[in-house]
Amino acid sequence: MTAFTREALSERDAADPLADFGERFDLPEGVVYLDGNSLGALPKAAAERLQNVVTQEWGHDLIRSWNLHDWVGLPERAGDKIARLIGASPGEVVVADSTSVNLFKMLGSALSLRPERATIVTEAENFPTDGYMIEGLLRLMDRPLNSIKYWDHADARDVISAIDEDTAVVALTHVNYKTGRIHDMAAITRAAHEAGALMLWDLCHSAGAMPVDLNGCGVDFAVGCGYKYLNGGPGAPAFLYVTERLQNDITPPLSGWHGHAAPFAFDRNYRPAPGITRNLCGTPPVLSMACLDAALDVMLEADMAEVRHKSLTLSDAFLALVGQECGGFGFETLAPPPAERGSQVSLRHEHAYPIIQALIARGVIGDFRMPDIMRFGFAPLYIRHIDIWDAVAILREIMETRAWDTPEFHKRGKVT
Amino acid sequence: MTAFTREALSERDAADPLADFGERFDLPEGVVYLDGNSLGALPKAAAERLQNVVTQEWGHDLIRSWNLHDWVGLPERAGDKIARLIGASPGEVVVADSTSVNLFKMLGSALSLRPERATIVTEAENFPTDGYMIEGLLRLMDRPLNSIKYWDHADARDVISAIDEDTAVVALTHVNYKTGRIHDMAAITRAAHEAGALMLWDLCHSAGAMPVDLNGCGVDFAVGCGYKYLNGGPGAPAFLYVTERLQNDITPPLSGWHGHAAPFAFDRNYRPAPGITRNLCGTPPVLSMACLDAALDVMLEADMAEVRHKSLTLSDAFLALVGQECGGFGFETLAPPPAERGSQVSLRHEHAYPIIQALIARGVIGDFRMPDIMRFGFAPLYIRHIDIWDAVAILREIMETRAWDTPEFHKRGKVT
Repeated sequence: MTAFTREALSERDAADPLADFGERFDLPEGVVYLDGNSLGALPKAAAERLQNVVTQEWGHDLIRSWNLHDWVGLPERAGDKIARLIGASPGEVVVADSTSVNLFKMLGSALSLRPERATIVTEAENFPTDGYMIEGLLRLMDRPLNSIKYWDHADARDVISAIDEDTAVVALTHVNYKTGRIHDMAAITRAAHEAGALMLWDLCHSAGAMPVDLNGCGVDFAVGCGYKYLNGGPGAPAFLYVTERLQNDITPPLSGWHGHAAPFAFDRNYRPAPGITRNLCGTPPVLSMACLDAALDVMLEADMAEVRHKSLTLSDAFLALVGQECGGFGFETLAPPPAERGSQVSLRHEHAYPIIQALIARGVIGDFRMPDIMRFGFAPLYIRHIDIWDAVAILREIMETRAWDTPEFHKRGKVT
Repeated sequence: MTAFTREALSERDAADPLADFGERFDLPEGVVYLDGNSLGALPKAAAERLQNVVTQEWGHDLIRSWNLHDWVGLPERAGDKIARLIGASPGEVVVADSTSVNLFKMLGSALSLRPERATIVTEAENFPTDGYMIEGLLRLMDRPLNSIKYWDHADARDVISAIDEDTAVVALTHVNYKTGRIHDMAAITRAAHEAGALMLWDLCHSAGAMPVDLNGCGVDFAVGCGYKYLNGGPGAPAFLYVTERLQNDITPPLSGWHGHAAPFAFDRNYRPAPGITRNLCGTPPVLSMACLDAALDVMLEADMAEVRHKSLTLSDAFLALVGQECGGFGFETLAPPPAERGSQVSLRHEHAYPIIQALIARGVIGDFRMPDIMRFGFAPLYIRHIDIWDAVAILREIMETRAWDTPEFHKRGKVT
């Protein structure tokens, strides 16, 4: 392979069909932000929308905004926008609560559809909250905690072999938060269905980063996050998806008034709304949700195939440059081959923690995951190929000068 | 009683120790806002804080803000502020999720502490979502729905007689959303405890409107709303309270990663954080929570005894003026005596719906509750006594001219 140069990468940026999206985000000067997989950057339109929702809709129109600005319909409207990003149909997605809470709802609903089956298949390396939420649900239902079958094997793809006739639900994260590996959604969903189980995907690390085809894969349930690649802001509300086939068969375990068929009739007994709306629970967080809604409009202007293509040219460039510029510094790359790679790669190093601190101090923002992993995410809407060059150049300099090896960078704070 | 005049009410405003708080809120010209019990008005400081959180903390400091601006500690910090308003100690309150979701958490935890008891006592006239959430919990736990004992009696105070040795939890709303009647927190909590049951209060209509003494009454669990008298914005996150006595005895049914003892260690198994923090679940909604946090600072500057005093002089004035100015128009007042009255009163009228629409069209904002109730809330921080005069004068004019009796005002839209 010919050596990469900054000029060659700059030419790629000049030819990038997504290049203009960079202008749509407020990013600070002097920062290379490779952590959009943890918290997406600020879309200018989201800041403007929020300002308007606060001063005009809340401040001026007050309670009337529930009708006047259709705050009531916002969870479905924003949901329909997300549906277009993940291969779902209108009316199959709604924005609500947090990913953890939505996981609980979807799992509770799924278990109620398979009452004769005992187990939930997930994987040991899943994002921990997914397992924690299953534990809480099982405890509440007075089921044994070993109903969770944690697939724990070097090759995550073999998770299919853990699915059997006692499996009620297979619950997996589409792209692994640590390794960035993509599961084969079509094959695993098919295997779950062949065994009579239901399939629940967590799209936290894939929604907005690559094409997802829930309908095409016949997926039953999904959840995902609003604050990573969807750029909805810190702690943005999450989303959930229920296939149209099953929507009216489930009775949500979190049966709150905004999921009621007639929330403002104030009936004594719960009667679920038709369709996806029954999966709402309490009053929607209007400020955060409007912010996410505006961020989605930016995302929807992008072609998802182009997003995916650029995601891979960015991560390819990063991997090649780490090899070219930082070959002798003991990094191990954790990066699946392109077809199985999400929009992030990880480097393993025995001094990962102080190295990531030194990078952040010089404006290259990635993050650390226990025990020795540095994660770098590539949000194609606002990261350029020359940013990758600059990030790796700074990494090289830090390694050459051992700039990471100061007491300041070794000191552990609260880690996010 | 001497007739009220606008001048006399204006003198009261001149002597009002809370008068200066009006300046702290952005309220539109020409509006008398008597719906702060449904959505509190916009505190100027909250709009400023939100602007800063968006542009500086999110936009500029990005992922670093979890540590740099201690987003991680925000749920507890805001919770400690609410604790001061409801008679709780530091570390007994946390801001999280919605009221509905928090009810589910608290009820699930309470039932796990009384495994040998079958019933939950509430009242038929409770806010409906409270009952809906209990239904969902019981369904998930495979318990019969008639485990809910709905007290349904003309005198809500007799709810104590429904508590017996089979009662696991008594779950009541402190101030009724429709009638504005205050339950006797001390007496009912004592009765619950004497029967060996646990006590859960919903403070949606009392937090920020009157002194509440959870510790003094020995309350076990409470939940409440951030967007009514606390002025946290539409759909603001809610709060929950667990008495220090019980905090480490409960395992939250919604056991998400932000309630884990070490959320960023990414352990496979759930291990609850010590204290109140275990009741967090997913990633906190930072934007909405920061907005609420700033609104709380305004509230905390007010003396809660003065807030309560003014609340009653406002509702007394409203009731007297409706009698004085609107005596012949067929209104029935639903207002408990002052000692049992929350910060709202209701009027019943056969044409309640078009009348409230006509009022709103003229800038007097109250709300409608099925089937024939007009609710008016009195938020003491920003409502003046002359506002009450102006509101009733407009009501009188609408009734005298039958201005409510037009097709426009009879037409039902979505009702909030």
